[in-house]
Amino acid sequence: MRAELDGLFRAGTVSDLLGLTLLDWSLGRARVLLQPSPEVSNVAGSVHGGVLYTLADTAFEVACNSYGRVCVALDVTAHHASPAPLDEPVTAEAVEVSRSTRIASYRIMAAGADGILRAWYLATAYRTSRWHFGPERWPRDWRDTH
Amino acid sequence: MRAELDGLFRAGTVSDLLGLTLLDWSLGRARVLLQPSPEVSNVAGSVHGGVLYTLADTAFEVACNSYGRVCVALDVTAHHASPAPLDEPVTAEAVEVSRSTRIASYRIMAAGADGILRAWYLATAYRTSRWHFGPERWPRDWRDTH
Amino acid sequence: MRAELDGLFRAGTVSDLLGLTLLDWSLGRARVLLQPSPEVSNVAGSVHGGVLYTLADTAFEVACNSYGRVCVALDVTAHHASPAPLDEPVTAEAVEVSRSTRIASYRIMAAGADGILRAWYLATAYRTSRWHFGPERWPRDWRDTH
Amino acid sequence: MRAELDGLFRAGTVSDLLGLTLLDWSLGRARVLLQPSPEVSNVAGSVHGGVLYTLADTAFEVACNSYGRVCVALDVTAHHASPAPLDEPVTAEAVEVSRSTRIASYRIMAAGADGILRAWYLATAYRTSRWHFGPERWPRDWRDTH
Repeated sequence: MRAELDGLFRAGTVSDLLGLTLLDWSLGRARVLLQPSPEVSNVAGSVHGGVLYTLADTAFEVACNSYGRVCVALDVTAHHASPAPLDEPVTAEAVEVSRSTRIASYRIMAAGADGILRAWYLATAYRTSRWHFGPERWPRDWRDTH
Repeated sequence: MRAELDGLFRAGTVSDLLGLTLLDWSLGRARVLLQPSPEVSNVAGSVHGGVLYTLADTAFEVACNSYGRVCVALDVTAHHASPAPLDEPVTAEAVEVSRSTRIASYRIMAAGADGILRAWYLATAYRTSRWHFGPERWPRDWRDTH
Repeated sequence: MRAELDGLFRAGTVSDLLGLTLLDWSLGRARVLLQPSPEVSNVAGSVHGGVLYTLADTAFEVACNSYGRVCVALDVTAHHASPAPLDEPVTAEAVEVSRSTRIASYRIMAAGADGILRAWYLATAYRTSRWHFGPERWPRDWRDTH
Repeated sequence: MRAELDGLFRAGTVSDLLGLTLLDWSLGRARVLLQPSPEVSNVAGSVHGGVLYTLADTAFEVACNSYGRVCVALDVTAHHASPAPLDEPVTAEAVEVSRSTRIASYRIMAAGADGILRAWYLATAYRTSRWHFGPERWPRDWRDTH
């Protein structure tokens, strides 16, 4: 199942458009890399806040869907700590903070190559009753506990 | 000054990349249109949350920079109300809710062609002491009150 | 049912502690009044942010539970627009912005006697499958649509 | 200066009203304890969300004012992870995540006696140009860097 989920997570066309690469993921966790192109600039000459958000949102999406259950973003709060220069990659790491059957929350940190924080996020997901590739592909016991 | 600001607001390359058009703006207010291309899809087949955010963020950026003072996004909270289908335009309208010298807040509503709400946002901006095109281009009285 | 819900909404001991009064409510909407006592001051001599939040949260709680379905707060974002003086009442009005079976969102505006905005909020509720006073007290048709 | 700041932080009347105690604090960090009384209950019989928020807000306020610079809450986002039972203390810890001259952000975790997360927060403060007890009480070098 992991290989199939991995294929799903890497299929995003928005990632191609903006220059995002899924680095790695495990249960409740994911890291995504942004290699900024000149096109993702804002008027001030740094990375557009919408592109940083999409980077963070992509890490969040992978982290919350990592159990196989279909999860969707509900609320996301972004805080901008410092401008992200265009000539520097940014990595976003999403980490699960809490999880119940229906709701989970994640903290996402987006930092530059030097580890300097660019933005961070508090994100919550609604965990549906649907499963990627169909429920029969996941053991009942797994579904009951994840 | 309005024509110059308008040119600045329409120069964004991220807008070209994602299919965003600035519809209209006035002091503290802006409307931006998204014409979704197949590339802005998420894995579920609707508009990616990061693209909706970029739409809202663009309306927010225009609304808060509309006075000529350089403003930057500080905190943005997104709530997703319903999936946005790919075959339907989405319009985001940013409206100013509060404003002091240093901080302003905006409510942004993103709705489909039928007026159905897709997402909404509470966004706050930090209002710097810099002015677009230089402070000398803006009357002192305007700068003191905006 | 309305009288019973109204009794429930007015039973809060926190409201007594802080000086909150439920003014009025209808489906998806509520208004609550804060009469500040000297005890709700912060160190700066204005109303404590936690007390303003409790005021807004109370209006939110009534608005989202107004249909009879048991709803709980999930995510709340607060923006502080201006300090609230201690010698002035504050009214918070919660208004529903979106609602599906499981999730609803509310905008809450907290303003002084003169209508000046003190704080505003984007709040989301999780709508459980439980009903106040038991499901049998609510018509099946109502439960299916609210 | 530390003793004077400590006195200021412990003077809050809202803390007495709700049962909050400042446990400890250092630069950019603070821990506050809530001993719930029956009065801080919500209608569901657990700790009212407004009281949990006030607990977190108090830790946040101490953490951001810990440098001596007068700081005020700007935006706070709360996520509720699980109900907090009335018969159990809750501890909130605020930790600084980012800080510039004018803006700082904090993560606040509120957990029960058993370490189970009840709520967590992303909070941002506006850092004014004023200093507690007057600017002349703080060395110029400290003021320039904090």
